[in-house]
Amino acid sequence: MAAPHRPSWKTAWRSFYYAGAPEAPDPVLVKGKVALLVIDVQNTYLARPEDRSALPPLERAREAAWDGFHERMHGIVIPTIARLIERFRAGAGPVMFARIACLTPDGADRSLSQKKPGWNNLFLPHDSEASQVVPALAPRPGEVVVTKTTDSALTGTNLRLIFTNMGITHVVCTGIFTDQCVSSTVRSLADESFDVIVIEDACAAGTMELHTRELEIINRIYCEVMRAEDLLGYLPA
Amino acid sequence: MAAPHRPSWKTAWRSFYYAGAPEAPDPVLVKGKVALLVIDVQNTYLARPEDRSALPPLERAREAAWDGFHERMHGIVIPTIARLIERFRAGAGPVMFARIACLTPDGADRSLSQKKPGWNNLFLPHDSEASQVVPALAPRPGEVVVTKTTDSALTGTNLRLIFTNMGITHVVCTGIFTDQCVSSTVRSLADESFDVIVIEDACAAGTMELHTRELEIINRIYCEVMRAEDLLGYLPA
Amino acid sequence: MAAPHRPSWKTAWRSFYYAGAPEAPDPVLVKGKVALLVIDVQNTYLARPEDRSALPPLERAREAAWDGFHERMHGIVIPTIARLIERFRAGAGPVMFARIACLTPDGADRSLSQKKPGWNNLFLPHDSEASQVVPALAPRPGEVVVTKTTDSALTGTNLRLIFTNMGITHVVCTGIFTDQCVSSTVRSLADESFDVIVIEDACAAGTMELHTRELEIINRIYCEVMRAEDLLGYLPA
Amino acid sequence: MAAPHRPSWKTAWRSFYYAGAPEAPDPVLVKGKVALLVIDVQNTYLARPEDRSALPPLERAREAAWDGFHERMHGIVIPTIARLIERFRAGAGPVMFARIACLTPDGADRSLSQKKPGWNNLFLPHDSEASQVVPALAPRPGEVVVTKTTDSALTGTNLRLIFTNMGITHVVCTGIFTDQCVSSTVRSLADESFDVIVIEDACAAGTMELHTRELEIINRIYCEVMRAEDLLGYLPA
Repeated sequence: MAAPHRPSWKTAWRSFYYAGAPEAPDPVLVKGKVALLVIDVQNTYLARPEDRSALPPLERAREAAWDGFHERMHGIVIPTIARLIERFRAGAGPVMFARIACLTPDGADRSLSQKKPGWNNLFLPHDSEASQVVPALAPRPGEVVVTKTTDSALTGTNLRLIFTNMGITHVVCTGIFTDQCVSSTVRSLADESFDVIVIEDACAAGTMELHTRELEIINRIYCEVMRAEDLLGYLPA
Repeated sequence: MAAPHRPSWKTAWRSFYYAGAPEAPDPVLVKGKVALLVIDVQNTYLARPEDRSALPPLERAREAAWDGFHERMHGIVIPTIARLIERFRAGAGPVMFARIACLTPDGADRSLSQKKPGWNNLFLPHDSEASQVVPALAPRPGEVVVTKTTDSALTGTNLRLIFTNMGITHVVCTGIFTDQCVSSTVRSLADESFDVIVIEDACAAGTMELHTRELEIINRIYCEVMRAEDLLGYLPA
Repeated sequence: MAAPHRPSWKTAWRSFYYAGAPEAPDPVLVKGKVALLVIDVQNTYLARPEDRSALPPLERAREAAWDGFHERMHGIVIPTIARLIERFRAGAGPVMFARIACLTPDGADRSLSQKKPGWNNLFLPHDSEASQVVPALAPRPGEVVVTKTTDSALTGTNLRLIFTNMGITHVVCTGIFTDQCVSSTVRSLADESFDVIVIEDACAAGTMELHTRELEIINRIYCEVMRAEDLLGYLPA
Repeated sequence: MAAPHRPSWKTAWRSFYYAGAPEAPDPVLVKGKVALLVIDVQNTYLARPEDRSALPPLERAREAAWDGFHERMHGIVIPTIARLIERFRAGAGPVMFARIACLTPDGADRSLSQKKPGWNNLFLPHDSEASQVVPALAPRPGEVVVTKTTDSALTGTNLRLIFTNMGITHVVCTGIFTDQCVSSTVRSLADESFDVIVIEDACAAGTMELHTRELEIINRIYCEVMRAEDLLGYLPA
């Protein structure tokens, strides 16, 4: 039986602005000039309560609403990023990591948006277990890891200069959350004249709807969205 | 007859992440420390073909798809921004403008994303009529106008430093397009620790769906989304 | 009679750190990838009192102390920059200008150091005659001119991104003052991984001693210092 | 017997531009809003050959020329910084460190100027002993340490944003080398609208002449130069 047809990345994830536009061209990726960037795949975001039944009803419902995210992370996103890391380490280009972490014990160095109450309030000391990249994707010695207290991995770090110094022209973005730090990083990279690729099955948001919505918004304008298998066909050996 | 009930901005435009979260607090705006930023409301985006019937069918359909945007701009967005400008000029704080424009005659200074083919390909020489702010919102002498070849009004300008030098802590964002330059600017401002407010009826995207989607994504995390009438209640006299 | 011997730029302007170091290599300049940057050669810095004898004695002495600077500017620096501009306009690469200027009528957008009392207190509205580039070096339409309220022409502008977008790898710096805005710009450019050349006879400081001291400090570490005639031998046709 | 008269910092280290200018005003330092920044006091710069007599004559002479620097560092600069650190840790404000270090094993992330041959060629992997801050000034857990591959501690790091987020308005600069990384950092800080103080006896250059020359160049324009005992009189308790 034939595999179900899936539209080419070249015409997928289109918003109103690009309806009817021509197909995206094949990217030309040069060995050593393309970097893999893994954004915010940190222990804290994969943590779950040990005993959900002990939670008050509202929190239990809230926790349940995150089930889809965790399934996607473990079933698709983390394995996909691991596969890409392996391929980049084999020689395509450097693997780099950004993670949210503050340098001071009281979080005073965090940007305003990460100090405000609510979902985005983040207090992740840089040496805490919670702020580390998940073990399945652990950086190797010698790989660049930047810490940030911002959403864009460029605004609050020296990553732009590192990319420039290393001769990187194309950045492949993966990680979480598609609509937040991934989108902010992609937008900054495009503004700074990098060629950006986002791997759909290497990213996730709180819901698939938010994930897909933001991909449609950033695709073609700030980046090319494709799947890991699409990218692997373009990566230099 | 009573006016139709509209939910308070404090619980509106919420995404998955903020479902069930407490109401947003009232912003505290201090005279001279809050700026109004008008983003990319330029002639080029309001231009329409003189005779639509002369267009080939596909372009005609494409043009028709933009009718809603133009109606919203002329009926709601531009009048709302004009009202806000008047109030800020009366003393609340400075009015500033960002516009997309290149400094070189061949556009060589544009960022990569604005050189690529498609919707986002922009070639707007800074002294062309097309790149000027629309007459209804024309900047006055002495008001700051920055030009950019990026989407974020911070990444490719010195606006962050200008805000800092002028003692601005809160930035009220208006303009187009909600999901593109407005969102990119809001994200940069939040990362740079400014308090950001986005005025829903002073922004527009290609479609209302894109507009609302991105507002839900950025609200509470990077900014507070409210309507002009909400803001006017908070602005210092 | 033979011309007086002048040491090659390759071993000149050396400080303690580079005593005994090998000669600097020949720069390799590629057409279109090298830019000429003219820094702060503005009317205000060339202005002199109409009638010096009318000044109080202390101010008259102070004015007289500046005679050497003005002689050097008119006799050497401005003619040298004019010659370089001509050569760059003939095709070597773009000519760009930075000038100190504020965008607001009260100078509120200036950086702190330009608001403090003393020599560096600067109030140069961008549309004033005083803030314009001197007529002998006037920018042509289509040439990039950035305004700044900082000393480094990179910190307070989008010049770094413009250089990157235009594919510029080498920047030739000229202008005033050697120890202030020129040095600050050179240091920023080097930190941002540009190859920098400073033209000794196209720069000036308040005194020749300050000029030479700072050239010795920045030479080899942040830039190569040479004379215009040296550069002309390396410029692409 | 009376102590030898030493001129007040308020009129010392003046260059041509500030000859005859009024005295500098007393700085107003607020608890928690002033930070101490220790720049590049790293093991590599204090290292000396074990047996100088084993060196070839030229290198031996070169090494001897550095004797003054090392005497100043051990006799004056390091003890002075240690004294300042103690006072800041007692509550005046945060102590922060910048050090030159690359993140990649081959130094590919270094800026161009640190890859060029000569004195400034630096290859200091971030986890090497050579790149650590000297033990006498070792950072405590929870103190911010930024790594950079640039000379300015702002250009190539997120220190500016950290200062802003922590509410720092005044930065006290110490470290090495006065004419290089210290000066570049001071210039960047001033451009970014921080109030900057440089402690004369907490800085050093390769020679005292270079040290004093650059202090005269940056004093009053970008910073106030004073001695540690002067600062201690202004620091909040």
